[in-house]
Amino acid sequence: MALINENYLKLQAGYLFPEIGRRVREFQKAHPGADIIKMGIGDVTLPLTPLVINAFHEGVDEMSKAASFKGYGPEQGYGFLREAIAETEFRRRGADIHADEIFISDGSKCDTGNILEIFGQNNTIAVQDPVYPVYVDTSVMGGRTGYFQQNGYYDGLVYLPCTAENGFIPELPKQKVDIIFLCYPNNPTGTTASMEELKKWVDYALRNKAVILFDAAYEAYISDPAVPHSIYEIEGAKEVAIEFRSLSKTAGFTGTRCAYAVIPKNLMATTESGEEKPLYPLWFRRHTTKFNGVSYPVQKAAAAIFTPEGKKEVRSTVNYYMKNAGIIRENLAKIGFKVYGGENSPYVWANSGRGMKSWDLFDKLLNEANVVGTPGSGFGPSGEGYFRFSSFAQHENVLTAMERLQNLKW
Amino acid sequence: MALINENYLKLQAGYLFPEIGRRVREFQKAHPGADIIKMGIGDVTLPLTPLVINAFHEGVDEMSKAASFKGYGPEQGYGFLREAIAETEFRRRGADIHADEIFISDGSKCDTGNILEIFGQNNTIAVQDPVYPVYVDTSVMGGRTGYFQQNGYYDGLVYLPCTAENGFIPELPKQKVDIIFLCYPNNPTGTTASMEELKKWVDYALRNKAVILFDAAYEAYISDPAVPHSIYEIEGAKEVAIEFRSLSKTAGFTGTRCAYAVIPKNLMATTESGEEKPLYPLWFRRHTTKFNGVSYPVQKAAAAIFTPEGKKEVRSTVNYYMKNAGIIRENLAKIGFKVYGGENSPYVWANSGRGMKSWDLFDKLLNEANVVGTPGSGFGPSGEGYFRFSSFAQHENVLTAMERLQNLKW
Repeated sequence: MALINENYLKLQAGYLFPEIGRRVREFQKAHPGADIIKMGIGDVTLPLTPLVINAFHEGVDEMSKAASFKGYGPEQGYGFLREAIAETEFRRRGADIHADEIFISDGSKCDTGNILEIFGQNNTIAVQDPVYPVYVDTSVMGGRTGYFQQNGYYDGLVYLPCTAENGFIPELPKQKVDIIFLCYPNNPTGTTASMEELKKWVDYALRNKAVILFDAAYEAYISDPAVPHSIYEIEGAKEVAIEFRSLSKTAGFTGTRCAYAVIPKNLMATTESGEEKPLYPLWFRRHTTKFNGVSYPVQKAAAAIFTPEGKKEVRSTVNYYMKNAGIIRENLAKIGFKVYGGENSPYVWANSGRGMKSWDLFDKLLNEANVVGTPGSGFGPSGEGYFRFSSFAQHENVLTAMERLQNLKW
Repeated sequence: MALINENYLKLQAGYLFPEIGRRVREFQKAHPGADIIKMGIGDVTLPLTPLVINAFHEGVDEMSKAASFKGYGPEQGYGFLREAIAETEFRRRGADIHADEIFISDGSKCDTGNILEIFGQNNTIAVQDPVYPVYVDTSVMGGRTGYFQQNGYYDGLVYLPCTAENGFIPELPKQKVDIIFLCYPNNPTGTTASMEELKKWVDYALRNKAVILFDAAYEAYISDPAVPHSIYEIEGAKEVAIEFRSLSKTAGFTGTRCAYAVIPKNLMATTESGEEKPLYPLWFRRHTTKFNGVSYPVQKAAAAIFTPEGKKEVRSTVNYYMKNAGIIRENLAKIGFKVYGGENSPYVWANSGRGMKSWDLFDKLLNEANVVGTPGSGFGPSGEGYFRFSSFAQHENVLTAMERLQNLKW
């Protein structure tokens, strides 16, 4: 009698984005002529840049000839890509990361979802609140939580509230935690963490032998030189942190799929009996046993991003979205919203300033302005009252959406 | 204090292919001039076919323009690909599989490794012996086994010996098992299972409410019309089986990455308390939460394979390898080997007929003929004495390798 993994039955049915989709479809049905502008799901809209496209085509061409054809590649990714990343993304920023500590993958959603596999069942996991739902849902699926509670929290997970009061940087947990998911620039709040703030977390992890799972998927949106791009810019972080990076938002790879995780070789965790073991060989084994590498032409396309010309192209894409973010910030402030993020992040996190609940604001914007955003409460109880606007949209659509918001009656 | 998943410590260090690599490197170092022919790792050598390449380029072109650019796609794969697969691979063979029961993924290694996540911890898992190591290793990582034993078996796994005596079709297990990995055409033995033999397994699963995980990665190599391509050709299989298919060997996608899993909607498993639950929503949740879809241009390339012209191209690639398989069979038989497989499968499974152990034969072939194959004992204790020859090689190399084998002294 085959038994199911009953942890799946603990998952809440109404995942945020399906619920948004349902309400939008219903509205569309009732108002077939409405011109709905979507600023909800954080998906890019600009095409891949010319250098990336060229390299992608070259990769495909190589697959067409026996002499240059590529079969199985290294599961961890090709050396040319791992070397380019180690050099341009880490060593140039003073973070001493080696190519063989980088594991190329097909997405940060996959990596942040899979990483718990190399950790034991008896770890206490902390997440920020509000939070990217994948960290929570994969913790539930993997049996690292109890049941969902009335208060909107899963039993057994430690939630770290991120509010305007603490600048969306959580306090250190009062109870002992073993694994901490941190995301900066943050999804959904769009805020960043300074060197000092990250150091506090690294020091906590060093003191408590905890591991930080640092999601830096939006790193490319940082323009303030004081904001760290990698947790490895903090001393000691290589002993306590795994970092996740993605080309999805950096270079428009949401449909092309390429990301990477950094597992430093001197990052340790312990057995139940207290023996220290490096995590590197565990992830190496996991990655090589359960994954077969990213498509070769995709890796070839990805490598173009780490050339000087490629970086320029990517920067121009990022600037396009950041111009949108500026317009969103400005316009929301004008109508009395309290506005956060959107300066070193593609996400603007806003509160109506009128005491409205997130889903009420969602319905109002959908009905009265035909604008779709993401209700903050969908990211966790501390997101209640907030709303996430994504700057991944056509510039003209952003202008139209903001114009409509100016005319709202409250 | 972060704790590791200690199940990883149970894994055996010497994975088969690294050990082959080590011995080959050592030999190469000692004999720098040697012309080594590799027939070990089952990796394809022919380039992608013209229609696949064209579609791949078209997909890349679409990513270069805002109007046709694709961001996040459906995690389960695009409808155009799922529809084509359901129609050409299943419905035309009388297997009533619907497009929404197909989950496009980046590899069968990933799928067969990940599938156990939706099953509970207290399932008894059965594997064939010899066996593709991923089923075993991922069972170990997921805590479904005990420790590795002196006899070459993990405690807690049920091994089903496949030997010449039973035609490499295992007997039904004497003890109750809940999950059964079956692979046909089989890797490594190259043998196939008839309708009657598969029916025996489907009936066992129906009687015992077990689930069959059916790996059909080599399905494209079946030419005998009596051999089933899919387990769903057997009545009742939709209630007990998940099937895995891959484009890796079918169409040379080992470096391009595309595969799929079929999860029928009426496939059930139970909770510990005996309540029946469909597995479909669990895998749907797993796949959409921990995976973000296959690269769009890759899916576009993959779809070309399921057109009538694409099928012809793929057939011609398969025929090329199968001609190699015939030559290998014939030549091995001539020098007194007992030969199996290689008729509806790219793998030839052979026994020296001289009572030699697998690794001894490996060393002899490497040293005396500079030919590399895969020692059967690396796939499990019942593989001892056997050797796997892969037909994925350049035709000329196969001829040369076989000529060298004819001249061996015994």
